[in-house]
Amino acid sequence: MENYRKESDLLGELSVPANAYYGVQTQRAIENFKISGQLLSSYPEFIRGLAFVKKAAAKTNYELGLLDEQLYNKIAEVCDELLEGQLHDQFPIDMIQGGAGTSVNMNANEVIANRVLEKLGKPRGDYQYCSPNDHINLSQSTNDAYPTAIKLALIQMNQKLVEKVKTTVAAFRAKGTEFQDVLKMGRTQLQDAVPMTLGQEFEAFAANLQEDIEKLNNNAKLFVEVNMGATAIGTGLNAPLGYANLCAKNLAQITGFPIVSAPNLVEATPDTGSYVIYSSATKRLAVKLSKICNDLRLLSSGPRAGFFEINLPPMQPGSSIMPGKVNPVIPEVVNQVCYKVIGNDLTVTFAAEAGQLQLNVMEPVLSHAIMENIHFLCNALDTLREKCIIGITANKEVCLNMVRNSIGIVTALNPYIGYKNSTVIAKEALESGRSVYDLVLEHGLLTREKLDDILDPKNMLQPHK
Amino acid sequence: MENYRKESDLLGELSVPANAYYGVQTQRAIENFKISGQLLSSYPEFIRGLAFVKKAAAKTNYELGLLDEQLYNKIAEVCDELLEGQLHDQFPIDMIQGGAGTSVNMNANEVIANRVLEKLGKPRGDYQYCSPNDHINLSQSTNDAYPTAIKLALIQMNQKLVEKVKTTVAAFRAKGTEFQDVLKMGRTQLQDAVPMTLGQEFEAFAANLQEDIEKLNNNAKLFVEVNMGATAIGTGLNAPLGYANLCAKNLAQITGFPIVSAPNLVEATPDTGSYVIYSSATKRLAVKLSKICNDLRLLSSGPRAGFFEINLPPMQPGSSIMPGKVNPVIPEVVNQVCYKVIGNDLTVTFAAEAGQLQLNVMEPVLSHAIMENIHFLCNALDTLREKCIIGITANKEVCLNMVRNSIGIVTALNPYIGYKNSTVIAKEALESGRSVYDLVLEHGLLTREKLDDILDPKNMLQPHK
Amino acid sequence: MENYRKESDLLGELSVPANAYYGVQTQRAIENFKISGQLLSSYPEFIRGLAFVKKAAAKTNYELGLLDEQLYNKIAEVCDELLEGQLHDQFPIDMIQGGAGTSVNMNANEVIANRVLEKLGKPRGDYQYCSPNDHINLSQSTNDAYPTAIKLALIQMNQKLVEKVKTTVAAFRAKGTEFQDVLKMGRTQLQDAVPMTLGQEFEAFAANLQEDIEKLNNNAKLFVEVNMGATAIGTGLNAPLGYANLCAKNLAQITGFPIVSAPNLVEATPDTGSYVIYSSATKRLAVKLSKICNDLRLLSSGPRAGFFEINLPPMQPGSSIMPGKVNPVIPEVVNQVCYKVIGNDLTVTFAAEAGQLQLNVMEPVLSHAIMENIHFLCNALDTLREKCIIGITANKEVCLNMVRNSIGIVTALNPYIGYKNSTVIAKEALESGRSVYDLVLEHGLLTREKLDDILDPKNMLQPHK
Amino acid sequence: MENYRKESDLLGELSVPANAYYGVQTQRAIENFKISGQLLSSYPEFIRGLAFVKKAAAKTNYELGLLDEQLYNKIAEVCDELLEGQLHDQFPIDMIQGGAGTSVNMNANEVIANRVLEKLGKPRGDYQYCSPNDHINLSQSTNDAYPTAIKLALIQMNQKLVEKVKTTVAAFRAKGTEFQDVLKMGRTQLQDAVPMTLGQEFEAFAANLQEDIEKLNNNAKLFVEVNMGATAIGTGLNAPLGYANLCAKNLAQITGFPIVSAPNLVEATPDTGSYVIYSSATKRLAVKLSKICNDLRLLSSGPRAGFFEINLPPMQPGSSIMPGKVNPVIPEVVNQVCYKVIGNDLTVTFAAEAGQLQLNVMEPVLSHAIMENIHFLCNALDTLREKCIIGITANKEVCLNMVRNSIGIVTALNPYIGYKNSTVIAKEALESGRSVYDLVLEHGLLTREKLDDILDPKNMLQPHK
Repeated sequence: MENYRKESDLLGELSVPANAYYGVQTQRAIENFKISGQLLSSYPEFIRGLAFVKKAAAKTNYELGLLDEQLYNKIAEVCDELLEGQLHDQFPIDMIQGGAGTSVNMNANEVIANRVLEKLGKPRGDYQYCSPNDHINLSQSTNDAYPTAIKLALIQMNQKLVEKVKTTVAAFRAKGTEFQDVLKMGRTQLQDAVPMTLGQEFEAFAANLQEDIEKLNNNAKLFVEVNMGATAIGTGLNAPLGYANLCAKNLAQITGFPIVSAPNLVEATPDTGSYVIYSSATKRLAVKLSKICNDLRLLSSGPRAGFFEINLPPMQPGSSIMPGKVNPVIPEVVNQVCYKVIGNDLTVTFAAEAGQLQLNVMEPVLSHAIMENIHFLCNALDTLREKCIIGITANKEVCLNMVRNSIGIVTALNPYIGYKNSTVIAKEALESGRSVYDLVLEHGLLTREKLDDILDPKNMLQPHK
Repeated sequence: MENYRKESDLLGELSVPANAYYGVQTQRAIENFKISGQLLSSYPEFIRGLAFVKKAAAKTNYELGLLDEQLYNKIAEVCDELLEGQLHDQFPIDMIQGGAGTSVNMNANEVIANRVLEKLGKPRGDYQYCSPNDHINLSQSTNDAYPTAIKLALIQMNQKLVEKVKTTVAAFRAKGTEFQDVLKMGRTQLQDAVPMTLGQEFEAFAANLQEDIEKLNNNAKLFVEVNMGATAIGTGLNAPLGYANLCAKNLAQITGFPIVSAPNLVEATPDTGSYVIYSSATKRLAVKLSKICNDLRLLSSGPRAGFFEINLPPMQPGSSIMPGKVNPVIPEVVNQVCYKVIGNDLTVTFAAEAGQLQLNVMEPVLSHAIMENIHFLCNALDTLREKCIIGITANKEVCLNMVRNSIGIVTALNPYIGYKNSTVIAKEALESGRSVYDLVLEHGLLTREKLDDILDPKNMLQPHK
Repeated sequence: MENYRKESDLLGELSVPANAYYGVQTQRAIENFKISGQLLSSYPEFIRGLAFVKKAAAKTNYELGLLDEQLYNKIAEVCDELLEGQLHDQFPIDMIQGGAGTSVNMNANEVIANRVLEKLGKPRGDYQYCSPNDHINLSQSTNDAYPTAIKLALIQMNQKLVEKVKTTVAAFRAKGTEFQDVLKMGRTQLQDAVPMTLGQEFEAFAANLQEDIEKLNNNAKLFVEVNMGATAIGTGLNAPLGYANLCAKNLAQITGFPIVSAPNLVEATPDTGSYVIYSSATKRLAVKLSKICNDLRLLSSGPRAGFFEINLPPMQPGSSIMPGKVNPVIPEVVNQVCYKVIGNDLTVTFAAEAGQLQLNVMEPVLSHAIMENIHFLCNALDTLREKCIIGITANKEVCLNMVRNSIGIVTALNPYIGYKNSTVIAKEALESGRSVYDLVLEHGLLTREKLDDILDPKNMLQPHK
Repeated sequence: MENYRKESDLLGELSVPANAYYGVQTQRAIENFKISGQLLSSYPEFIRGLAFVKKAAAKTNYELGLLDEQLYNKIAEVCDELLEGQLHDQFPIDMIQGGAGTSVNMNANEVIANRVLEKLGKPRGDYQYCSPNDHINLSQSTNDAYPTAIKLALIQMNQKLVEKVKTTVAAFRAKGTEFQDVLKMGRTQLQDAVPMTLGQEFEAFAANLQEDIEKLNNNAKLFVEVNMGATAIGTGLNAPLGYANLCAKNLAQITGFPIVSAPNLVEATPDTGSYVIYSSATKRLAVKLSKICNDLRLLSSGPRAGFFEINLPPMQPGSSIMPGKVNPVIPEVVNQVCYKVIGNDLTVTFAAEAGQLQLNVMEPVLSHAIMENIHFLCNALDTLREKCIIGITANKEVCLNMVRNSIGIVTALNPYIGYKNSTVIAKEALESGRSVYDLVLEHGLLTREKLDDILDPKNMLQPHK
């Protein structure tokens, strides 16, 4: 059939679409792995990771005299095309596959080889001039090239995620400033505690997420240690002497990331420790985000039978049956993303534990779970910031009234009338429905002047002098 | 040394405390597995499970002519002692051990053998008259005796758990009746929805947990299928013909449980499917309990800056600094137990997945995790019921006022004035702070008479006629 | 702009593509929830679930006199179109959204309303003749329609999954028969145990998975209990008397499933217990599948430095660097799907626990996680069966040699020479490298004739007579 | 009754054992929380953490003029007693409690107060001279004292864990050296790959675990940031100006740890981020340990039907039915601990996500889960090192023979005869059962001399020159 070309491998001959840049092994993977429908082509940073690896490998092979200059130049050109976003539709492999990434590595090898052949004026599949295995994969194995590409992808994706966290922190911080004079009751164990400002609460959200910028970056730093030159199992069989370090150096130069060669390549090849802990860092972010969204939903509960301290911007009619109802749909969707992230982190844990001997064959699902997490978290942060945080308003009067009526302010009297007396007042207030203020005066425990001073909000929001 | 006796096994000689009923293999396990400090002796149902197994095995061996009558009678006597709770301190093995339960099985074999020897007037360790391996373990392997004992333990423990669920359901149901006239706002997405009674809410808690009685029992039923007669890998090597079925029959008679022999012993021996799904059922119970406790904490939030619909009985002063504060400490501890249960369910999942070939060697931690879950859930249910549910009171006025002030009641007008008009009223009510009732009259949408009828609580708590 | 029409809701006016069947609320959801990129339109069973619900609701409303015959007929027609797979591209909402499914329910309401309008010769959006809220959603709330649609979707999807399990069981069973004469060593704790046949091992895989057919079906049965007529919170406000039962009856008739009305609608509305335990059942299937795939990979390890008992069909060249290497890529991808399933089950757990008061707003992610699991498991089972199981072959000689050389066969001598003597022989065999057979004769423990009889494979594969 | 004394609190009077140092609130906690049976008294580092906090608080109060010198000195004395391990039996509270740690904090306050009273010659419970609330808890809240004590406990426990990891690394490293000349086949995807040494494999285990020393320490460093001075919600109400920083300084001086005050106390009070990520680090260690133990079990599989590359020291007879069987019981128990650790990490995740508003009330179960993990991991590491690693021996001949017979060595020929030719040789070797060596010569692809050089083990274990 004329729209197909024949290619062959260890298992025999197979038809490949005539105009495809990918070849026989990619074709086998398409047919073997119809699992999630989520394709490599939808993760551009991953394809860029592969391009970085192949470019650095070619450069190293060239510098070590294993590849001639023309071929090196062509390969580098093609890698640059991939880095610019071209030919990404030539990566049609399911993100969840068997083979420990061999299909993905070969997909890259085949696309690059055929595009080089095209540039050389040769037909696709005529691999004597440029072979996926002998030239593009030269001095490499899937077992070094594939995890290195994943790590480069994750470094890029982490940068994006960190940007989203930063702008979200800024949005919370702006609200913290905006609400700095909104006095409200703090709550512990869902019970009224002592006064604070709504600004302190939002500033705490900001501070809480801000810590994760460093946490994410620190854990992503583990990805700069790569195992290029390990080849199959870390012993470096078939790689030329000096390859590992030179390739790491070239990768550093090409990517701009501080890439180094892992100190023990036999250890580094099956190791998934960096994924596990980076995934944990995304989980930590999810746990925090989820807690914050839970709080936003609590604070906006009501309008008449809830806390009603803040208003979230209405994004859609809240009910198909209850007119006028507006629901906290944006925090709700963020909560759900967080649960997905936590689930994916467990997938990572299982996949990491399943590594055996000199390789972890579960890297495809492991890396997919992390990439999905970053992708979902980026979307969730954009959504939360743009469609919720920046539009939040405060119900200042509602907040203030709760402070005025509260029993919790009795805490501030502790240092003056003692814990035992305070307890008596609190109990009486609760039972009678009366105010702490009145009861303290009635019991003659403090003068009105002193009491006013102690209960002055400004004095309750900070340590006493 | 005179306080020790010498015993020996495949690995050589070892000292065992002279008066211990257990022997050399138990002694090795004590020394090998210093892990959790949680001992077999603290799970009496487990020891009873072992006693059931050993008694049924002896009976079967006797009936098949492999064991003489005297020895059988003595073994049965000792098993009965174990069933009555005697000698449980002779099971000092850590619940988390290697060896797929061999130590536990041998612990039972050794204790029974030595106690039989004692009854026969023989010194401990003189195993020619009654041997842990050749007599007590006759026609068995750890790989059938151990999982069977676990299953018998879990059947007993499940009965206890189900009792606790039942009494907790009854406690919630009683509150459902007590609160049947307390009108309050229902809430969806933490936003005011439409009216209901507090009684309906508590009756729903009861109904929600009640479903789990059947669910737990149904899943526990899987434990009646045992693999006695499988011996090492399910092929029944060394067991006499007919042993499997006869032993199951004897177990059924001895335990009173409807024990049957698994249809495929090769399959049944490494299979942990029944554990996985029973553990899931305890997780489901935990998820429901946790949701209910979250609700109790929300409903009792306040007293002045929360929902304050109900009061939980105060169990302790709530704060070391805030006088008069009383916190929902009982729901809180139940929530925490639920998180522990969910964690243990994950341990079960991992342990089940790690089974290899003809055996799952992770059964010790797997069964421990389930037993811990049942134990914790029993305690949590007792605590919740006795120290919280039965003392809950309603703040009837608070609840009623929220209905009166609510905008959500506009929903009831939908069928009369349409969704669009209702939406306009709701929006105006929210913005103006005015009541739905007044606005409907002001807009001339309904007569006062009709409006009163529609908003009559009795009419809002059920479908309309 | 002429390619758009204007629609409006509680929040104001919005542009909707002129030819879209969906309306303003769907449009808001498209804009609000850019999260996973996985759309409702890729879950046809879910859309069919919605169509079932809307058809049954319309029929019930018609029978109760709330909907005129013409409109009912048109609505039923449109629902039938959806059931046949038409207009599914009109469901462009992200599977992960906030709002507890309101967007999905309104998407269905809008598409049906506009398609009815089209049939009535009215322009889209002219909702006075057929309104998404007042007609299509009549007597319903998202809080009953949405979970009911999910349950109907899951019943359908479960049927598909069960079919896949059945054919996979059959494939394993066929291999069990094929390999019934292949004698091999069984292994416990990865150590040589006693002999069995490869057929027994594959039959055990079949039996193991077969149990899950019933388990899945039993748990899916919980989905037949629906809360139609509950409206917002289960009190049935705005639904006519008798609606709940009649709607369930109509649903049963339309779907052919034994649908019933939940006994307590206040309980049923927020309850996610059926999801939790069904998800657990998919997890159990995943745990078993993963264990089986681990075994297949172990049994096919080698060819020279592993077990090498079986050969998996080669599906792709195994290595980009190691020529001739063929890897167990199909079991590997199935393992990875299993880890994904376990991760999604955790997402379900989190989402279920997060339900609050009268609703669980996390149902979108909860249902998505289960649907993704079923979808992935179906694909994994097809892949495992077609691309692996049916092509497995046995290395009969390799298997037999391991039995001949084994020490484990000494177990069969236990009943004849005792555990202690057997231990001595085993130890000597291990240390000397000699065979159990020779050593038993040399020690004069048994005659050659007796020994041959005991060690006859036929006698080692079953209980002795 | 004379063996009891009466104490009272907000809830009224209660009997406390006359000679108990703890008081009424501890007594309530004993009665309220009968959950796990695992008591505070079994976590000495936790009690030391409380003692550090109370001593530092007293010192700060003294320096700020809030506490007189005598009382300060007595409190400090008592704290020193606790630090030395005295009175730990006076902490009988269940590790899993409600109340966000109030009971634990009050337990410490009461024990210290009563011991001070004793030193002052006053009867227990005579709190006018030294009050748990007004003196010991002065300027504190449970919400700052309790999490600070947990963090101090975890810093201590982490030091212990890191020590265990270090010695385990050393043990693996020693084996790496011992086995440096044992040539064996490396395996990827459980299929024979290329040669390596057993020494490289064990050195990789060492290197793999070694990374976690830094990882654990780095994450434990987060615990040095404490929120003393936050009081109830971080606003510092009732704490004197300057208290937070001075108390942190005093804590640093007393503990020797580089304690600092958290920059935002409102954020720090409910934040559980440090726990989440430290728990993740213990999970990472567990994942690695589990993988290593899986490998040890694989490598020692056999003796006749497995890999049999190494021998684990026999620790117990392996079977109650199979004589002579010795199982890898130590790696097995370590695997199980790892599953427990992973389960506990999930408990931490749930507990962290459940924090609400100004406090996380789930800290008791959260901290217990982490402490249990550290405790179990310490025991598992000791067990693994002492009872397994140091006694491992290699089966050198077995290992070497697998290399000689392997097909995987064809990989080394790649650079000389090309991937395609190598593939042909590999295929023929597999099908014929012949050796790669013979086939290469037969096909005339290389001279015997060249071939010998390429296949020289020394040349296959590293990059080529």
